[in-house]
Amino acid sequence: MSDAYARAGVDIAAGNLAVQRYRDVTSGWTHPDQLGTLGGFSGLFRLPGDSKRALVGSTDGVGTKILIASAMRRYDTVGADLVNHCVNDILVTGADPLFFLDYLAVGKLDPEVAALVVSGVHRACRENACALLGGETAEMPGVYRPDHFDLAGTIVGLVDLDAVPDPNRVNPGDAIIGLPAVGLHTNGYTLARALIPEEEYAAPFGVTTYGDALLAPHPSYLVPVRAIRKVADVKSMAHITGGGLLENVPRTLPDHAAAVFEQTRWDVPPIMAELVKRGNLAHEERYRTLNMGVGYTLIVPIADVDKALKAAPGARVVGFVQPRRDGEPRVVVRPARST
Amino acid sequence: MSDAYARAGVDIAAGNLAVQRYRDVTSGWTHPDQLGTLGGFSGLFRLPGDSKRALVGSTDGVGTKILIASAMRRYDTVGADLVNHCVNDILVTGADPLFFLDYLAVGKLDPEVAALVVSGVHRACRENACALLGGETAEMPGVYRPDHFDLAGTIVGLVDLDAVPDPNRVNPGDAIIGLPAVGLHTNGYTLARALIPEEEYAAPFGVTTYGDALLAPHPSYLVPVRAIRKVADVKSMAHITGGGLLENVPRTLPDHAAAVFEQTRWDVPPIMAELVKRGNLAHEERYRTLNMGVGYTLIVPIADVDKALKAAPGARVVGFVQPRRDGEPRVVVRPARST
Repeated sequence: MSDAYARAGVDIAAGNLAVQRYRDVTSGWTHPDQLGTLGGFSGLFRLPGDSKRALVGSTDGVGTKILIASAMRRYDTVGADLVNHCVNDILVTGADPLFFLDYLAVGKLDPEVAALVVSGVHRACRENACALLGGETAEMPGVYRPDHFDLAGTIVGLVDLDAVPDPNRVNPGDAIIGLPAVGLHTNGYTLARALIPEEEYAAPFGVTTYGDALLAPHPSYLVPVRAIRKVADVKSMAHITGGGLLENVPRTLPDHAAAVFEQTRWDVPPIMAELVKRGNLAHEERYRTLNMGVGYTLIVPIADVDKALKAAPGARVVGFVQPRRDGEPRVVVRPARST
Repeated sequence: MSDAYARAGVDIAAGNLAVQRYRDVTSGWTHPDQLGTLGGFSGLFRLPGDSKRALVGSTDGVGTKILIASAMRRYDTVGADLVNHCVNDILVTGADPLFFLDYLAVGKLDPEVAALVVSGVHRACRENACALLGGETAEMPGVYRPDHFDLAGTIVGLVDLDAVPDPNRVNPGDAIIGLPAVGLHTNGYTLARALIPEEEYAAPFGVTTYGDALLAPHPSYLVPVRAIRKVADVKSMAHITGGGLLENVPRTLPDHAAAVFEQTRWDVPPIMAELVKRGNLAHEERYRTLNMGVGYTLIVPIADVDKALKAAPGARVVGFVQPRRDGEPRVVVRPARST
């Protein structure tokens, strides 16, 4: 599985092995105020002197999307990709963002390019009412090529412990609501770069270009998720990042439940259909490497579906929770006939 | 100035220009709970619903020290460098660390190497009683060479607003206490790599080797600083990182005060004396690029000096605060005759 991704140079097995080795090397000690992670999206930490609230932290990068941004000399959008990605990661715990810090590493520092990158970070922070508290810019000749850079960031949020979703409340029969993805967001770019060469970035692709379709910014789901949580009993959420529906949704599902998605219920963005076609991606690869059009999921009781859909334009029911027995898959995606 | 550093490929002027451009692009909006930064070491953020405490955040990397670690295949120490660096950065505000998140980016993921890196992060977190709350490992072929990696991290701490040092209380006549540096810590490595080629890392250097002297881990100053603050009125502190004494100490000095260091009062670590010799570094370059043996400074009234020195083994008076008029330098280092 994920053959195409492996061919593109990303070793998912090595990634899983690393995670396991991290568990080994960190198992000897855990801080007593650490509350564990909700599905691994974010870490929770008890706020000292406050029994009702926790801080939530998450670190991420934008991956090789930056190489496409570099090639297109479009520097002011990757910052927003990063901030919105991080906002969504802590949103899974119910947390509101407090502040963000960025890390920008370059081979050769061009102050104008760096300022464009940071302007994107700042703009997205503002849109999420999240402070841009600080950052670090590192010039590292020898680590990065002169025209290369990397961008990572860390978000810290705050959550009432009462408001943290409890995946154990998920039951067969619950509905899965999906919020639409606008493109690859922040994942699958090593594969995308292998399938769409740089020479094609400026070529027309539908009403846009390949490059613009690839760079479509990762949206923040803060507003629709808050709106849905106001009117519906949200039992569990997932941010669909690397690993797609297949790996992200199980992270916040109880063992006895399986998520069944029906691909006829939502649209696959054209850029993803194009990658599927060019890479001849098998069913499993598509849903493990790409979000395939679903950027964020929320599990609610059937009775709350109508209210939830009305609260968030673009939201759709994308699947249902079914009973699961040991050994059965935790996520099933029933394909549309056309893909 | 800093000619040697520029020759090594790091452009300090570009760095300063980038900082100025960041101010431009972020000036349009600041989060209302953002309390500004103390000398730029860390950002402070008012804890929601708590008028007496603030969160403190700081992000940093280990710079090109990782290239020396890679060359020596010594992967379990750079994590501690990073954590201790970050602990010291927020310590300047008086904050106690709460949690840390790491970002590890690699060209090709080797799970064993990654686990060694994270084990160093975890060990230092434990030593500082700081949770390792999460992290991100990114495999990015095309950005990093297969054998290269980068490591950055973010720390979050908590401080009573009453306990934040107030540099405006610094007066001429106050003493500057220095905590000893054990080596380059996390700065000056691009210069060091230009002056000491990889072939020499295994060669003997005094009682150690060049490589080991270069990799000497960045210490945490949490324990000595806490001990000194218990017995002395600490008015201002600085973590001596990139920019050395010349650029870091002024960040927490009032305009009317100058810091005068007397180099006879402390020892310059041999590896730094070696770099000074090999690079023929001018006085200004030494104290701007390297810590030259002082890792952290605390400004206290003369009356508190004896108590402070007794509280922290290795601490020494390294200089004094003098009156300063407009246009005069903010930091003066009086050289020892031998260097």
